[in-house]
Amino acid sequence: MLPVRRSDRVGVEVFSDRPIAALAEAVAWIDAATFRLPGEPVPLGEAAGRVLAADCRAEHAMPDRDRAALDGFAVEAQRSVGASAYNPLAVPAAAVAAGDPLPAGMDAVVPLAAAEPGGPGNALLVEPVAPSENIERQGAVAAPDAILAAAGTRLAVPHLGLLAAAGIAEVAAVRQPRVAILLAGPVGSQGVPDSNRPMLRAAVVRDGGIIVAEELVAERSRPALAATLAVAASDIALVVGGTGAGTDDHAAAALAEAGELALHGIALRPGETTGLGRSGAGIPVVLLPGAPPACLWSYELFAGRAIRRLAGRDPSLPFRHCRMTAARKIVSMVGMTEICPVRFGGAPGTVEPLPAFAEIGLTAATAGDGFIIIPEASEGHPQGASVIVHLYEDREAETG
Amino acid sequence: MLPVRRSDRVGVEVFSDRPIAALAEAVAWIDAATFRLPGEPVPLGEAAGRVLAADCRAEHAMPDRDRAALDGFAVEAQRSVGASAYNPLAVPAAAVAAGDPLPAGMDAVVPLAAAEPGGPGNALLVEPVAPSENIERQGAVAAPDAILAAAGTRLAVPHLGLLAAAGIAEVAAVRQPRVAILLAGPVGSQGVPDSNRPMLRAAVVRDGGIIVAEELVAERSRPALAATLAVAASDIALVVGGTGAGTDDHAAAALAEAGELALHGIALRPGETTGLGRSGAGIPVVLLPGAPPACLWSYELFAGRAIRRLAGRDPSLPFRHCRMTAARKIVSMVGMTEICPVRFGGAPGTVEPLPAFAEIGLTAATAGDGFIIIPEASEGHPQGASVIVHLYEDREAETG
Repeated sequence: MLPVRRSDRVGVEVFSDRPIAALAEAVAWIDAATFRLPGEPVPLGEAAGRVLAADCRAEHAMPDRDRAALDGFAVEAQRSVGASAYNPLAVPAAAVAAGDPLPAGMDAVVPLAAAEPGGPGNALLVEPVAPSENIERQGAVAAPDAILAAAGTRLAVPHLGLLAAAGIAEVAAVRQPRVAILLAGPVGSQGVPDSNRPMLRAAVVRDGGIIVAEELVAERSRPALAATLAVAASDIALVVGGTGAGTDDHAAAALAEAGELALHGIALRPGETTGLGRSGAGIPVVLLPGAPPACLWSYELFAGRAIRRLAGRDPSLPFRHCRMTAARKIVSMVGMTEICPVRFGGAPGTVEPLPAFAEIGLTAATAGDGFIIIPEASEGHPQGASVIVHLYEDREAETG
Repeated sequence: MLPVRRSDRVGVEVFSDRPIAALAEAVAWIDAATFRLPGEPVPLGEAAGRVLAADCRAEHAMPDRDRAALDGFAVEAQRSVGASAYNPLAVPAAAVAAGDPLPAGMDAVVPLAAAEPGGPGNALLVEPVAPSENIERQGAVAAPDAILAAAGTRLAVPHLGLLAAAGIAEVAAVRQPRVAILLAGPVGSQGVPDSNRPMLRAAVVRDGGIIVAEELVAERSRPALAATLAVAASDIALVVGGTGAGTDDHAAAALAEAGELALHGIALRPGETTGLGRSGAGIPVVLLPGAPPACLWSYELFAGRAIRRLAGRDPSLPFRHCRMTAARKIVSMVGMTEICPVRFGGAPGTVEPLPAFAEIGLTAATAGDGFIIIPEASEGHPQGASVIVHLYEDREAETG
């Protein structure tokens, strides 16, 4: 069930003309090569989930004057002193609905349930009311020029309401990264349909990107790939397949020819044949392995991180993590960062290893609840160890 | 900063002809009134985030035969015994690329780095290889008829890859709930733009629904609202505004007229004027208060829950939660479930209260990191208490 020597060979020996990169080195390259894209105007109604490129400020105080917080009677509070069920007081009052400006001279609102109409311009109070009670004070939500949502905020449901209330109809949002996908290896193989395109399409959208091109490069043709890379018009290009050591694996050579191959071979499993570089036009290029689990993890750790950074989002993996306990020993090979798939154990708060991605493919993700990233220097975790588990969407761990 | 008496009055006295419902009672009504919608065929390429209405099974074994796991030479493992750098062995071999079926009689693959061509049909091995090494075994990913993704699964990135590899081009996904939004109260007020529509549009989409109608009902007109409710064609209708106790608040009466008003008035703050019921056609109707914070929380706890249930998703609040420590006392009123906004405290793993939604409106959400739900029976939490905090999107708490 645990790693065999083959990946070691692939990772270490095939690229022996250059040392393979540590995961941290590859992540540092991604971070250095990408930055938040500039803003563009976006109507507020289409801005859910977008990241602000600039602060949104309140033009005026919110509310812009004192308002009734609920339906009732606006009164002058000091006149209500002494009111009770045994001593109803008739006081000057104005019927107001929630949100109405407070009439001049009034400083509190008595709810409908605590008063009744007492003749024209009056109400009969059965309780006293304190000054400012049931009033939304001018500026309580926001002072003039206050920041309602700062640059970098990803707009969620309450932001949309607050910005709408401030009369903001359009925001400056970070432009969505344009992603080109170039299929360079065999697409599917021997009658097996391609897994990578459906995964990449969904992942790019999840991370805030837009796929602007999806090209099938003449299979295993290095000149065709180099030519396509040289002209790719996008913020980032993902090349899928052809990253291995075979005589017809041309992705790395084509990238070197078209621009720059910065890294090829990363001490990551799955994903060790990943490459990073730039096209001739200078856009970042991620070479994703063609094997589906390797493509998935190379995307999540490198391409997805780049897209999330370009989109102005939190660049870390889009999975929450929590501490859990290893119900069984989890073994990893020293020298490779391993993505170890896990599922929840029988006892709450525990996880147990699943067979590796190399053995059961994407089922190691779909049949699991999350994964553990075991760094290069570690040989894994003993039974009972406290581990950080990244949980897939919709998974909720009992963590006490 | 903490609750004043007004909401108590609104909650308890205004609806004194019927006792106000506890939160649990209202949630139970939602759960009883909603169920997972039936499936519809959806192309796999459009199915990201959708919930399966039926199991997806593998038609054939995956892989359908033994395959090479990497580029190299397929060999018969027993012939490699004794191979070393000092004793290279020439054995019958066939060059294979990753994914190729294993040629007859071969049972292992030697990576390119551990062999070199040794004349026609032969390779020169410098290491032994074990049987099955670097082979993807037939059925290792899935046995024939194995469930690849079970009914109820929300399709994420790896599922799309696995189902595509299985040749599945279309899935049966739970139909997206059709949501009608009827604006029954004043839309915005006194020149203040409406906050509720932008919030509801984003929240419905977030929860997997589709807004099929958005109607501005003749303002504060009970017959118009009743007539609209009677014919609303959707899976659920949300009526916004007009839920209070004012003489021109007609939402509850209109619902009673058009169908059934099951609950009106819930011991929830914000959100106490929420109503629940059914239209004449039997579809669930949620009466959302018009005040934006109350509308927001009434949506999240009731309408959103209904939509998530209809969509087949996890019905609980779409925020992850974790245990943290109250850095300051958090006070709540006995008798009302309160949504207490919090932000992270100075020390890791702590939260402190923000002013209530009644005081600072939606800013209590946008300026915060999450919220605590304090049940009706509790008067809150002392400083130092362990509390369950629901975290907004993108927030990550250091929880040790």
